Amino acid sequence: MSQSVSAYGVTSDSSPVEKLFIERRTPGPKDVSIDIEYCGICHSDIHQAHNDWNNTRHYPLVPGHEIIGRVTSIGKDVSQFKIGERVSVGCMVNSCRTCGSCSDGDEQYCERFPIMTYGGFDYYHDNAPTQGGYAEHIVVDEDFVVGVPENLDPAGAAPLLCAGITTWSPLKHWNVGPGMKVGVIGLGGLGHMGVKFASALGAHVVMITTSPDKAADAERLGAHEVLISKDKDAMKAARGTFDFLLDTVPVNHPLNPYTGLLKKDGTLCLVGALEPLTFHAGLVVGGRRKISGSAIGGIRETREMLAFCGKHNITSDVEIIRPDQINEAWNRVQKSDVKYRFVIDFKK
Amino acid sequence: MSQSVSAYGVTSDSSPVEKLFIERRTPGPKDVSIDIEYCGICHSDIHQAHNDWNNTRHYPLVPGHEIIGRVTSIGKDVSQFKIGERVSVGCMVNSCRTCGSCSDGDEQYCERFPIMTYGGFDYYHDNAPTQGGYAEHIVVDEDFVVGVPENLDPAGAAPLLCAGITTWSPLKHWNVGPGMKVGVIGLGGLGHMGVKFASALGAHVVMITTSPDKAADAERLGAHEVLISKDKDAMKAARGTFDFLLDTVPVNHPLNPYTGLLKKDGTLCLVGALEPLTFHAGLVVGGRRKISGSAIGGIRETREMLAFCGKHNITSDVEIIRPDQINEAWNRVQKSDVKYRFVIDFKK
Repeated sequence: MSQSVSAYGVTSDSSPVEKLFIERRTPGPKDVSIDIEYCGICHSDIHQAHNDWNNTRHYPLVPGHEIIGRVTSIGKDVSQFKIGERVSVGCMVNSCRTCGSCSDGDEQYCERFPIMTYGGFDYYHDNAPTQGGYAEHIVVDEDFVVGVPENLDPAGAAPLLCAGITTWSPLKHWNVGPGMKVGVIGLGGLGHMGVKFASALGAHVVMITTSPDKAADAERLGAHEVLISKDKDAMKAARGTFDFLLDTVPVNHPLNPYTGLLKKDGTLCLVGALEPLTFHAGLVVGGRRKISGSAIGGIRETREMLAFCGKHNITSDVEIIRPDQINEAWNRVQKSDVKYRFVIDFKK
Repeated sequence: MSQSVSAYGVTSDSSPVEKLFIERRTPGPKDVSIDIEYCGICHSDIHQAHNDWNNTRHYPLVPGHEIIGRVTSIGKDVSQFKIGERVSVGCMVNSCRTCGSCSDGDEQYCERFPIMTYGGFDYYHDNAPTQGGYAEHIVVDEDFVVGVPENLDPAGAAPLLCAGITTWSPLKHWNVGPGMKVGVIGLGGLGHMGVKFASALGAHVVMITTSPDKAADAERLGAHEVLISKDKDAMKAARGTFDFLLDTVPVNHPLNPYTGLLKKDGTLCLVGALEPLTFHAGLVVGGRRKISGSAIGGIRETREMLAFCGKHNITSDVEIIRPDQINEAWNRVQKSDVKYRFVIDFKK
């Protein structure tokens, strides 16, 4: 027997967000039931709702994968969480758990493809369509629930589950830390978390942006320097000096000016763009540079990130809205008019 | 006082190769004088002679950077070589020796740029133009001379100095060995060495080629499997199964079909193309795959490679020509009509 839950979603690729009801499954023995307090708005929510990527699989669609809430009930076999505890859910609610990637703790690269929090079909539960966190309630297997330190502002913690982990995972994978010069390209939802994390991890952080007017904010967030990518002399002077570049630009952009900034064996890691991109092979052949990418992060990494955030009191810079302001917020996200993430407060 | 040496080179970007005389410097205390027996023909020789890359810096130009010969004299401070010993010279004859790359043994990525064997200017020696191995004699600092095991066929050993090291270096850098599935893309001068080395290093080697008629030869060279890249079903079945891909294709080509063959964290390494290339960012974001590249190799690596070749009796498959056949050989190289490398025999 499923339960009807109040939510906000779209009924077609051209519909506005509206209040609707969805079904959540009856919690099983390993399930955690969560009363949702906050959910961040990710640009992917809008792309999926509008079918911009031609891969939206079902309507109605309730987006949202930056979910913060409190546990209201637990199944009989749940061992990791207690009723009343503050928890979070990110982009995935399950994976095959048996492939090489899952065994490595990289469920985001599950070879059978992870079950995404919304827009997927849950092959563990009768292939039911998954619906996200723009809702009052969600039911998730405890292995895909992550505890949230009580000292963190819960609204600011919501974007950690996507914008946070998407930048944390590559910074950790490439061992960013003291003695490294790290560039974060683009100052948006992802970029502002990249700067906070790289700085907290002890690296020398350079914000690389086209906009001189972002310099002050970048420094407030933790950047030690700002490099204006339109300044040809500054870019030339910086050639061959970076160990790692986190490229958060969400649209097509030239890679050559950035790739040339890397030292020998340095890596440019794409986390924003999902498009065909062009680079000159000479820039990777010379200096054995790498162009790579990274998608969200695994559950173990997400737990490590939230523990780190608790210790260093790191959250996202957010603008809190009411559920009836979602359409307006989506319009502003599409104009990049947010510093740096909208978070819906479901108790407002 | 310099010495006049008989050589073969071009006097302009549209001249045929002709016999001419060049000056070699009077050997200094650290110099090794070498009587050249064999020199391989690399496609780069032709590109440089014809100024195809718009970076040819002087004429006349004597190409050749796959040089095998015997030591005829040594300077008073030379400690690594003896008169009569068989030695080789590859693509570089010096580097700054002090930058980070040189300190790492990666002189090929010298931050001041290495002095190339031909076509450069030797900033250690009055900025004299460097001239390559299509000549009877060469003078090289001992630190850029590499000993050749006497058991190796010297003509077959010549291409090890460019085609060999260019494939050896990335295979070693990415730790190719037993338990790894490695694809070599393209079967030419570089590809045939890539197959021999990857196989000798213990990997499971797959030759990836557009041409079914290359299958038998690939297997003779050591490939365990052949994957025809035009066979869509075979390519689909192979998706996500490779640890490492050595991409030797020398011209622009689509990267997406190959990148998709990689496992999570796998690397596609470009060693052939030096052009703008396009890939879909989703293929590196998904699976955290890497697109990288590699240029020749360092001197320490070259020594390790030649020792390995001596031990495993590995040489290149060559077609030996006389010096008066160079123009004809160049024409055939431009048509990919060689299995797999021309080598000039200066004693013929």
